[in-house]
Formats: sequence, C-alpha cells, structure tokens
Amino acid sequence: MEYRRLGSAGVKVSALSLGSWVTYGSQVDIDAAAAMLKAAYDQGVNFFDNAESYAGGKSEEIMGAALKKLGLRRSSYLVSTKFYWGLHEGPNEKNTLNRKYLMQAIDGSLKRFGLEYVDLVFCHRPDPNTPMEEVVWAMNDMVASGKALYWGTSEWSAEEIRQAWEIADRRNLRKPQMEQPQYNLLFRDRVEKEYQRLYGDIGLGLTTWSPLASGILSGKYAKGIPAGSRLSLPGYEWLKDRFPQDVLTSTAALDPIARDLGATASQLAIAWCVKNPHVSTVITGASRLEQLDENLKALDLVPKLTQPVLDAIDQALAPALAIMRNHV
Amino acid sequence: MEYRRLGSAGVKVSALSLGSWVTYGSQVDIDAAAAMLKAAYDQGVNFFDNAESYAGGKSEEIMGAALKKLGLRRSSYLVSTKFYWGLHEGPNEKNTLNRKYLMQAIDGSLKRFGLEYVDLVFCHRPDPNTPMEEVVWAMNDMVASGKALYWGTSEWSAEEIRQAWEIADRRNLRKPQMEQPQYNLLFRDRVEKEYQRLYGDIGLGLTTWSPLASGILSGKYAKGIPAGSRLSLPGYEWLKDRFPQDVLTSTAALDPIARDLGATASQLAIAWCVKNPHVSTVITGASRLEQLDENLKALDLVPKLTQPVLDAIDQALAPALAIMRNHV
Amino acid sequence: MEYRRLGSAGVKVSALSLGSWVTYGSQVDIDAAAAMLKAAYDQGVNFFDNAESYAGGKSEEIMGAALKKLGLRRSSYLVSTKFYWGLHEGPNEKNTLNRKYLMQAIDGSLKRFGLEYVDLVFCHRPDPNTPMEEVVWAMNDMVASGKALYWGTSEWSAEEIRQAWEIADRRNLRKPQMEQPQYNLLFRDRVEKEYQRLYGDIGLGLTTWSPLASGILSGKYAKGIPAGSRLSLPGYEWLKDRFPQDVLTSTAALDPIARDLGATASQLAIAWCVKNPHVSTVITGASRLEQLDENLKALDLVPKLTQPVLDAIDQALAPALAIMRNHV
Amino acid sequence: MEYRRLGSAGVKVSALSLGSWVTYGSQVDIDAAAAMLKAAYDQGVNFFDNAESYAGGKSEEIMGAALKKLGLRRSSYLVSTKFYWGLHEGPNEKNTLNRKYLMQAIDGSLKRFGLEYVDLVFCHRPDPNTPMEEVVWAMNDMVASGKALYWGTSEWSAEEIRQAWEIADRRNLRKPQMEQPQYNLLFRDRVEKEYQRLYGDIGLGLTTWSPLASGILSGKYAKGIPAGSRLSLPGYEWLKDRFPQDVLTSTAALDPIARDLGATASQLAIAWCVKNPHVSTVITGASRLEQLDENLKALDLVPKLTQPVLDAIDQALAPALAIMRNHV
Repeated sequence: MEYRRLGSAGVKVSALSLGSWVTYGSQVDIDAAAAMLKAAYDQGVNFFDNAESYAGGKSEEIMGAALKKLGLRRSSYLVSTKFYWGLHEGPNEKNTLNRKYLMQAIDGSLKRFGLEYVDLVFCHRPDPNTPMEEVVWAMNDMVASGKALYWGTSEWSAEEIRQAWEIADRRNLRKPQMEQPQYNLLFRDRVEKEYQRLYGDIGLGLTTWSPLASGILSGKYAKGIPAGSRLSLPGYEWLKDRFPQDVLTSTAALDPIARDLGATASQLAIAWCVKNPHVSTVITGASRLEQLDENLKALDLVPKLTQPVLDAIDQALAPALAIMRNHV
Repeated sequence: MEYRRLGSAGVKVSALSLGSWVTYGSQVDIDAAAAMLKAAYDQGVNFFDNAESYAGGKSEEIMGAALKKLGLRRSSYLVSTKFYWGLHEGPNEKNTLNRKYLMQAIDGSLKRFGLEYVDLVFCHRPDPNTPMEEVVWAMNDMVASGKALYWGTSEWSAEEIRQAWEIADRRNLRKPQMEQPQYNLLFRDRVEKEYQRLYGDIGLGLTTWSPLASGILSGKYAKGIPAGSRLSLPGYEWLKDRFPQDVLTSTAALDPIARDLGATASQLAIAWCVKNPHVSTVITGASRLEQLDENLKALDLVPKLTQPVLDAIDQALAPALAIMRNHV
Repeated sequence: MEYRRLGSAGVKVSALSLGSWVTYGSQVDIDAAAAMLKAAYDQGVNFFDNAESYAGGKSEEIMGAALKKLGLRRSSYLVSTKFYWGLHEGPNEKNTLNRKYLMQAIDGSLKRFGLEYVDLVFCHRPDPNTPMEEVVWAMNDMVASGKALYWGTSEWSAEEIRQAWEIADRRNLRKPQMEQPQYNLLFRDRVEKEYQRLYGDIGLGLTTWSPLASGILSGKYAKGIPAGSRLSLPGYEWLKDRFPQDVLTSTAALDPIARDLGATASQLAIAWCVKNPHVSTVITGASRLEQLDENLKALDLVPKLTQPVLDAIDQALAPALAIMRNHV
Repeated sequence: MEYRRLGSAGVKVSALSLGSWVTYGSQVDIDAAAAMLKAAYDQGVNFFDNAESYAGGKSEEIMGAALKKLGLRRSSYLVSTKFYWGLHEGPNEKNTLNRKYLMQAIDGSLKRFGLEYVDLVFCHRPDPNTPMEEVVWAMNDMVASGKALYWGTSEWSAEEIRQAWEIADRRNLRKPQMEQPQYNLLFRDRVEKEYQRLYGDIGLGLTTWSPLASGILSGKYAKGIPAGSRLSLPGYEWLKDRFPQDVLTSTAALDPIARDLGATASQLAIAWCVKNPHVSTVITGASRLEQLDENLKALDLVPKLTQPVLDAIDQALAPALAIMRNHV
C-alpha cells in the first residue's frame, strides 16, 4: 500500500481508503463490516471514512462495533466523521454548522463509535447561515478537547476554505487541514482548478469521494440502466438526473483503454484519481470482498497511466465532460 | 412556528419563546410548568428563558424538573440563564459580575437545572464596578468549559456591548452574541436607535422581554387598576410608578385596531415586536395554557401589520410614547 | 464592615481581614481557629489570608478544617494562599517560582485546605531565577484551570509587577491583580511611592500585611522588650535586628495621639493603613478574640484621622522613619 | 551535587543525571533499577532520563516501577520521555512527530511510567515530514493539559529549534525550552558552534547525552575491541562504523592527563562536558553501582580543568577530532 501525507499534515493515509456511505447500516451487518474492514486493513488500508448522517447514525455504530470486534491497534488506523446534515428535524439540528449542533454532534458520534476520539472530523457541507468564525471556533474546540485530531471540510468552495483557514490563523486556532471533495473523471474542475492555490498556500489535503461517479464509470450503465442497479432504485432519481444518457453511453469508451492495460474500467477510474498527487486518499466503497479486492488492485495500475493513456482517456471522455460542465 | 437566527449566530430561536419570570417557583408547580413547556414545545417554541434570580433559584429548579419529566431531546431546545442579581446578600454575591460570583453562579445554575450546559447565558445587567475585561474573561471561560454555548448581555448600553465585543475580539476570546432588552410599543428607543449600529457591525441578536409592558398593553388597566391585577399587588408599586395614568388610559386606543384585525390588543403588541427583523425572539410569559395559545396566535397577525396599521398604532400611542420618554 | 474592590477587580474584600501567619498550626488549634474565623466573619470580615509556608502547611490544614466545621457559604468569603518558600529542601522545591514547583504547590494547597479553589493566589516573593514568562504562564494556568480566581504578587518591585502584567497583556493571559506588601507607619515608601503608577495603570489592588510592624507599633516595646513577647523569643532575632532601639522607643509617641481619639496605639496604626484608599484590605493577625475585636474597632477610628491628626502622627514618627529608611 | 537551571527555565537539574538508554528493560530488572536510582538520588541526582523507544517501552515501565518502589517525593525529581521513533511499524507510528502519534504517545508513556505527568518531554528527532506548526501545537497541548511541564527537542538543528520557538512565540503557545544533543570530546561543534546564538536568544538548556562517546572515551577500545564490549556485540556495527580505528587509538592520550589529575579517562570526559556552562546536565549511563559512583565523582574533577589541562586535552585529541569532522 502507498501512504500519503494528508496535505501538509504529518499524518499519512493509505492512497486507497474505505468509505461506508450507502454501505453500513443498510446493506451489511457488523460481521460483514468487520470482515471488510479486516480485509482492507490487512491489505494496508488505514483510513475508514464515515459520517453522522450515513444510514442515520447506524454506519458509525456498525463501524465502531466492527473495530471493537477486530481489536485493531487504535494508533494504526484513522476514522473520520462528518457533521452538517444532522439526525433530527429541528431548526438547529439539520443542515447547519452552528455551535449547538456541532458540540452535541461530536459527543453523539463518539458514543456511537465507542471511540475516545476520531482522527478526522469534517464539516460535511458549508453553512452560509452560520458565521465562519462560529464554525472555526467549534471545530477548534473539538481538536482542543481531544475529541478529534484534525478538522477539515467537505464540498466547500476554495473561498470558504480560505476564509476558515485565515480566521484560524489570525486567531491562533487550529486550522482546517483537509477537504473531502467529489473527484472523478467526470468531476475534475474543483480539485484541478478551483483548489489549485490552496495546495501550496495552506497545505490542503484531499480525501476524495465518488471515484466511480456513483458507479457510472464502471460502464455498467453504458448500455442502459440494469434492473436492481443503483440508478434503477426508487429514491435515487436525483442521481439518475445528474447523468444525462449521453454521458452514461460515453463511459463505454473507457472499457477498451482499461482492457489494454489488463484492468477494468472501474480500476482505471480509481487509478486515475490516485494519479493526482494532490489527492491524499481516494475513498472507495465496497459491499463485497471481491469488489474491495478489485478496487485495491487499481493501485497497480497507477504507474501504467502514462501521458498517452491519460490523453486517450481525456479524448474518450471529452464530450461527456463538456456535457457535465454544462449540466447542473 | 417561525425560527430566526440569534443575530448573526448559526443557532435559531423560535420567533416567540417562553419566559419564566414571575411564573415558575411562585405561581405554578412542576406539573403545570411541564404542561406549559410541552404545549409551547408542541407548537414549535424552542427557547425557554430563565435566570438565576427568578423566584430565588426556584424557577431554574422547576424548569429543570419539568424538562426532565418531559424527556425532550436536549438538542431540540434552548435554555438560558442570567447572572447579576445573585441569590445572597454578601458583598461579592449580588449586583455584580465579578469573576468569583460568575464562576460559582454557573455551577449553581447547572445544578439547579440538572443540565450539563445552558445554551445561552446572559449578564443580567451591566456592572460598572467590575472591569469589562474581567467580565469578558469569565463569560468566555463559561463557553470554553462547555457550560454554556453562547453568551450575551441584558439591558446593557450599546457602548458597553461594543466594549465587551471589542475586548473579546482583540484578545481572541468568545464574543457576546445577543442582548436581552425590554422592547415593546412603549419602550422602543434602545432597540430601534441605540443598538442600530450593532446589528450590522457585530451581528447582535435580540431576545426581547416585556412585549406587553408588564401587561399594560393588554389594555386591562385602561379604565383603572382591577383588583387582583399585578399593578394592584403589594410589592409592585415600582411597576405602577413607571406608568402614569395617561399612559394606562391611552392603551385603550389599541383595542379597536386589534379588533379590526380580528385580534386582541395583547396579540397586536406581541406581533408588533415580532415584526422587527432585528428581534430574534420575543419572550412571552404565560401562567395559563389559554394565555400561551393566545400569545402564540400573535404570529398569524404579523403579516397583517401593514404600513397603514403600523401608522395607526404609532398615532394612537404618540402621546403615551412622549410621556414615557420624559418619564424616568 | 467596609468592603473595597481589590484594586480594579470586581471582587470586594473587607477593609480589615484576618491573616494566619504565626498563628495557625503553632499557637491555636482547629476549634480556636474556627472560633476566631466565626467571630471575624460575623463582624463582616470576608477574606482569610494564608500561605503554603505558614507553619509548614499546617496553617492551611487548620483553616480548611475550621472552615469546614463552620460550614460557611463558599461564595461568601475569600481564601488565599501564596507560593515561593516551599515545604521541602530540594533544588526545585524552595525559594522558587518555577513551573514544576508552582503546579504541584497549588494541588498540595487545595488538598490541605480541602477546597476546590482558592480565591487569591500570590507569588510570595519574586524569583530572579525563573523567567517572568514562565511565572506568568503558570499563574495563568492556575486561573484557567479554575484552581484560583485571581493571581497576584507579594513583595515584588513595581518593575517586576509591571513586567508580569505586560507579558500577560501581550500574550492574552490572565493578569496579576493584586500585591501583598508590608505597609505600616514605619514602612510606607513602596506603597506610597514605588507603586504609585500601578494603581491607575493596571488597577493594582493591595492586601497589606504587618500593620503593627510586627507588634512594634502597639508601643509594647517602647520601654524595652517584655519577657515572652515576640521580640524576646528565640528564632526572632532577625525581627529584633530590624528595629533599632530608637525606633522602638519612638513608638511611645503614638500613645497620646491615640488616647486623644479614644483608641489604642494599635488601633491608630491599623486605622492609618485603612485610611489609604489604595489599600484594599489590611490583614491583621489575632491569637485571642479580644485582640480581634480590638483590631476590628480600628475601623471606627478611620473617619477621625483628619489632616491635623495625620500631621501629628508624621511628626511624632519622623525620626523613626528616617532611621528605618537608612536601616537595612 | 551542583544544580543548574535548564537554560533560562526556573527548574534546576543536577549537573550529572542518569539515563536509561540500553540499560533498563534489557540488562537490569526493577530491583536493580531501583537500587541505581536510589544511589543516584541519594547523591543528589534529580533527573532521570528516559524515552518511549528505550527497550521498546520497557525502560519506562521499569523506571516507573522502581520509582514507585522507592516512594520518592514526586516534586523532588524530574523524569523525561521522548517521542519520535515509535513502538509500532505503522505509517503513522514510527519516525514521526505527527499529532496522532504524539497524542497517543504521551498517554502511553504516562501509563507505562504510572505517573500523572513527566517533567520534560522531548521530540526525539526532527521530522521533516510534519509541519513545524503541527509539532508545536501538539507539544504545547501536552504542557497545557498538564501531562508534561516543559518540552524540548533532541538532535534538532539550530534552525529547527529556532523555527519551533518562533512559531510558539508568535502564536502564544508554550515554547521549547531544552535540547538533548550528543556532546563529548569528539562531538563538539553543534553545542559549541551551531547552537551559540540560541543560549542567549531563547534561553536554550542542554541535557547532553553520550559523554563517553558510547564508551570510546573511557579508552577501553584504544588497543582494540575487547570481547563482550559494546562494539563487539552483534547489532552495534553501526556504532563501530562511526569510530575509525585511528580515533579509537587516539583516546589512549587521555589516560595520562586523567591520571595526573587522579582520575580516570571516563571521569575526565564527563567532567569536560560539565565544564561547559551551557550544559544544564550531562546524562550518564551506568549498569553497575560502582560505575555510577565513578561517574558522579567526575564532578570533583571539574574545578581542576584549568586552561592548561583543557589545552592538553585538545592537543591530544586534535587528530581524532579532525577525523571525526570529516567522517560521516
């Protein structure tokens, strides 16, 4: 496994890590989660991503129970959580980063995990209705109290990250260290353009999500939406709406490129994310052990992503990228 | 229920909230308090105002017992307390904001409430005999220790609030976020004039008290002081002295305006406070459930307060306002 | 009882307070200490001065046990301690203000007292061998942790106090608030001249000790050293050396002035200290209840200290003062 | 015993102190460690040096058990630990000063020691892969939480120490106070040249290690490497490689100088380190009580190190020093 610093931070994360979104609490139980964590851990994965809102808190409970069952050395792995969406409907309990919400959120999360601290804590989204200074103080207080080791953001604009960092710097508070953006072959601009100055200026680390663009890049939707697949499920209409049919179709072009390199389209898509040196870790999901193994093998593909290969990928996806950039 | 940010803070309070002044500990017991809290909560009220000095500490005890009985989710409501008047006669225990008093006061308050923290803590009055820096440090320490989430002031001058904020800003301490002023149709100048710059400059929120001017604005004293009413009680002479008879009489003019809108004078007076966008929440008192319901219905009246209605109110109360401004 | 602010601080101390130097742990036991504390408290004394080094720690133990026995309301009185001399002989345990010493000292003191916090904590002497920044950090940490409410100094030079204050101010740490100097008719210059700028600039409060100059000003040594008196005791040679015989003799001149005012020389000496508005409290010692009562009656004398009386005192002591100023 | 301030700090360390490197956990057991500590303590040694990595954590366990057995007054001695090398192989657990590692390291160390705090905590080496600000925050947090009293560095460059100090100074964090460098007759340049400005500018204290250059300066390798000596052991090839044979041979020249002063070459080498006023304490190792006694007697030699003696030493070792300076 390759390990990378979390931006400029001294802590290192495995280039591929394991997320629990749409996984724990809904599809798999504790034993299965433990088996998955163990398999990933044994192959060198040291970061397990989570969030308060995943499966309404159950994802944290199951990961915590699985970690306890495995008895892994606490200093050998990192666990994250994220706050913003909330677990309740109250005016101060959802879609917010106000101090009241955040202070009870970290306590609730640690209780569900059964941990004394999380390694990484993220503001899951920006909150335009809470002053940045209030957010920075609350996140600083989580680190100062030892409940978290590093704090960061997820899906924040460069300006928002910059503002939070500057407030922390000016007031001698703990600074945000990492951002968790969506990043894949079809969503590149934020990571590659918008954040460009932040890597050098503030040492921003990235823990990217959705390397397969919700599975699109595996190519399984290239010829239509198979029954039982995620895009066919009720409740996922929003996901389907994000990808016009032409985009789905165009993903078929990745297949021959991947096959030439002895890999699958999914592995190619994951490896392409890892190739970016500004990415600290690519968070992948897996509901089956075979899927995990396939994902992790993407690391072997990274050195094969030569300039000609990258050019071929860009050419194949150019129309889809153009569509996505014009698509809300 | 409408929810409003507490000034610039990310936390939101219901536009109408429930105070316990002269209520808990003296007139109603725990069951009645619980019934009132429940009824308010069920209608969306999320802020319950209190203070150390209300009923000599009993108001906090009864509210705490009622909250415990109801078993409401702690993250779904806000509780406040306020310190200044003190519970004892000693030279450091009353009419002060010295560090010794404040540090023991918050511990005593949390113990009476049976809570781990209060959401809002107020300096109940300014203390010219304690340096502002000592006050700001003590209030900051309450927030830093997790015993309170936000701190503010009550009945402070704009200059005093500004000074506290500036000290906190310069020293990287937690800043005051809200002020609890008297505000009603007869006392307008502080909220509407004196604090004007603070709303934009420091994001001051307001939790206003006395929307009915101690009941005057209900009109019940317009034709004299009824036996058994608050102004007739021994111990309330000071209150009676504050309202010259001409003022009491003039409140009768509100009645026809309210009736035209299908409301009572009390509802009109409350709605008028809510109409001010700088007001985060209007704290109302109620000793009976019917009174609570009547108060909360004032919210429906707010959209009906058009400019002509507001002008009619101002015209009706102009003489009374002039008297009040010249009256100590 | 008159109460005065501790310099600019919001906390108030009785103009006369009770010290335990050479008293507790050596001459009186817990019951007697409790009786004395109770008598003083009942007459309005709210500050009980102590130090780690008094009677090798026993003075704190006895005062703590007496306070516990009396069951006084914690918020109604102030207790102090002081650190520098230490209880042990080690190179880091005596005559020092290093962080290691101070951090264990406060814990040891609180344990002996049986208190959760002391109100005032003093650096008992300056320590030229510890950097001022190390001292300020340690004292700040005592306040930040809640183990003490205010910190100050004892027998520091104006420059040293100023330096400590400036470091705290620049680094946003808790500032020193009070100084405990010797102050009496024979030792005036530090309080009246050296500290002059500090009263206004930093709001320095004074808790003065030795109002009777080790008993000299009572006049009991004016005609020689009585057997059994402090100056006659072995181990007090240093004290005797501080007062040349001419000084002892000159104290007889206070007696007629005091008698004219219906008071004793001791009361005159104490009242003279209280007269100084920069003095927050005059710490007096008493081993018998009658002595306590006599001391406290000195307060009645203060208004009688008119300018002619003060001039008469100065004239009577002028030769003694000149001797003391030239005497090491 | 002579005691010296730890640089500008107020805390004092014995000029000679006792280290546990290669000693505890491997060669001696708890009883022997206790006997050694007691003998050193009885002769005035007040600083016992340790590190997380010594004997894989066992050195801390044995020292803690020995201290507990002896029941020494906690305020009378200082214990240190150091973090960098780590106890486990993970990417965040060795050769690092990242926050995650450091925060669990101090907790682990205190648990092994059975102590509430260590007096001195060192960054055992610089970590170019963790930003200095992250290191300074973590070390500051150890002091702020009371888990350590002073923090410093070991084998850092002057620039690195300066950078850490400046960050702490600018951000009002606790500053590094001491460095633990190798220092002996054969390794002088860092202490005597590189750090020169730091002594005055930031008050850097030194706790030097290896006064005998891994035993070389005792002269026991002057005529070859005896069987059973450290340089003959498997696993110490790296040590042997550091000292060319000509250097080993040249150490014989110290013997006559030492003998003239009635001392051994080892005592001469130790005394020479103590002679440097910038050295706060010279850490010596001892596996036998006789060796400890011999080392401590080196203190008597210090006054005899006149300029002619120092010149003679320099002349005798000049060739060896030249070799060492050119030797990696």
